[in-house]
Amino acid sequence: MISVVLLGAGNVAYHLYKAFKKSNTIEVVQWYNRTLKSISSYKNEVAITDNLNTLKKADIYLMGVSDDSISSLSAALPFENRLVAHTSGSVSIHDLDKKNNRAVFYPLQTFSKDFELNFSEIPICIEVTEKDNLQLLKDLAEATNSKWYKINTEQRQTLHVSAVYVNNFVNQLYRIAHEISDAKSINFDILKPLILETAKKVQYISPYMAQTGPAKRNDKKTIKRHLKLIEDDEHKVIYELLTNSIKRTHGLMKRPIKRIQKKNE
Amino acid sequence: MISVVLLGAGNVAYHLYKAFKKSNTIEVVQWYNRTLKSISSYKNEVAITDNLNTLKKADIYLMGVSDDSISSLSAALPFENRLVAHTSGSVSIHDLDKKNNRAVFYPLQTFSKDFELNFSEIPICIEVTEKDNLQLLKDLAEATNSKWYKINTEQRQTLHVSAVYVNNFVNQLYRIAHEISDAKSINFDILKPLILETAKKVQYISPYMAQTGPAKRNDKKTIKRHLKLIEDDEHKVIYELLTNSIKRTHGLMKRPIKRIQKKNE
Repeated sequence: MISVVLLGAGNVAYHLYKAFKKSNTIEVVQWYNRTLKSISSYKNEVAITDNLNTLKKADIYLMGVSDDSISSLSAALPFENRLVAHTSGSVSIHDLDKKNNRAVFYPLQTFSKDFELNFSEIPICIEVTEKDNLQLLKDLAEATNSKWYKINTEQRQTLHVSAVYVNNFVNQLYRIAHEISDAKSINFDILKPLILETAKKVQYISPYMAQTGPAKRNDKKTIKRHLKLIEDDEHKVIYELLTNSIKRTHGLMKRPIKRIQKKNE
Repeated sequence: MISVVLLGAGNVAYHLYKAFKKSNTIEVVQWYNRTLKSISSYKNEVAITDNLNTLKKADIYLMGVSDDSISSLSAALPFENRLVAHTSGSVSIHDLDKKNNRAVFYPLQTFSKDFELNFSEIPICIEVTEKDNLQLLKDLAEATNSKWYKINTEQRQTLHVSAVYVNNFVNQLYRIAHEISDAKSINFDILKPLILETAKKVQYISPYMAQTGPAKRNDKKTIKRHLKLIEDDEHKVIYELLTNSIKRTHGLMKRPIKRIQKKNE
């Protein structure tokens, strides 16, 4: 049995709590949050507190707080030589106060409070400063049926950037398609199977192999007609940039994009 | 029983053939292609021909050819007053020769020859010039268990543009994430569940509601750190453009993008 104290009440903490509750090998012995209100609805199933000085003993203290709070919260913990992990994709393991053993337990997935997730489909990126703690982190991941990967801080930060592309940016392309369709009274439902199929395809073949369409075919006529049909300037700029990106990936355009460095960089 | 003659051997024709063969209410009576070679492996299950003058009588002649060939092939058909449909997302219904009854049967999905598809998940956009033919098109779609939508040419062309965003451009973002991860020896598999979840989410909630991440939170610190981590100029430009697009969608940035008109437009 692994005993866990949860710290914080963000989306990740909430989903971890749900997943841990389902497991037979993890016990959430306490849930801490700065304000009790956000976790008070769980007070009948788990001990809750807003006072760091009343924290119980546990195998691991798992922080589901905002990136900015990780360093200060880990410094404020009133004990030493225990195992403390954060769950952030971008914060270094070394931002955790070194009075405790440090670890990262980063579930790479998109979390919203009102959207249930199957943890078995969430890869967990784990990192430790002391090798001895690796097994406990692995056990914790496996108890939620998750696949785990040993990932160092630099790799994790890179994954976090990649996740922005495949999640936030992809979602914004869905949004743009929604806007374009709405403007012509087209039911967005028509695009949903294509959205799903596009994501399914790269589960089996590489994005490079999966590519199709006018840019990949270098079909100038269709590209020109599309640009004429697109009314919004921003949508046009995105169309051109991603079309050129596809062309370069598939060797149809050699000229690289040059970015203009900004003054304050 | 609906009798169909297939014209052409592109990906769409190939997948339609497979779907029609499974149906009890559709009979593919003949398959025409300019060169027999591409369809010769089916000669034991269906009559094949490369001669338009030997085309059999059928309820509908369905063209799965390249956009550029639709007009000329429809003009070359040696009969009149029959029902001829193309399957293209971008070609007008009026590009079909008017000596026959005209229709469009456009399955909105990504097709590759070596990737099996479940037709019940493919929306079919149908359009007719003569109302009387609508029922046959609906029956054809339903025989493959597809959902059908009545979509006019302008809407269909708009859908085709939207499809480029949610399929080709989304796939290019997957590709960029693949490049970024590969550069740090990160297994691309780690990103696959997130890719799938992002697509699943918008099956139930709008892309607007589904958005999360640093751009939506206007988290300047993370955005700055990400831009520092991204090595490739093109990847940076795409990061900035889509970040700003998300900000504008969510009211965090007012300034619109202006596109510079090109000389030859």
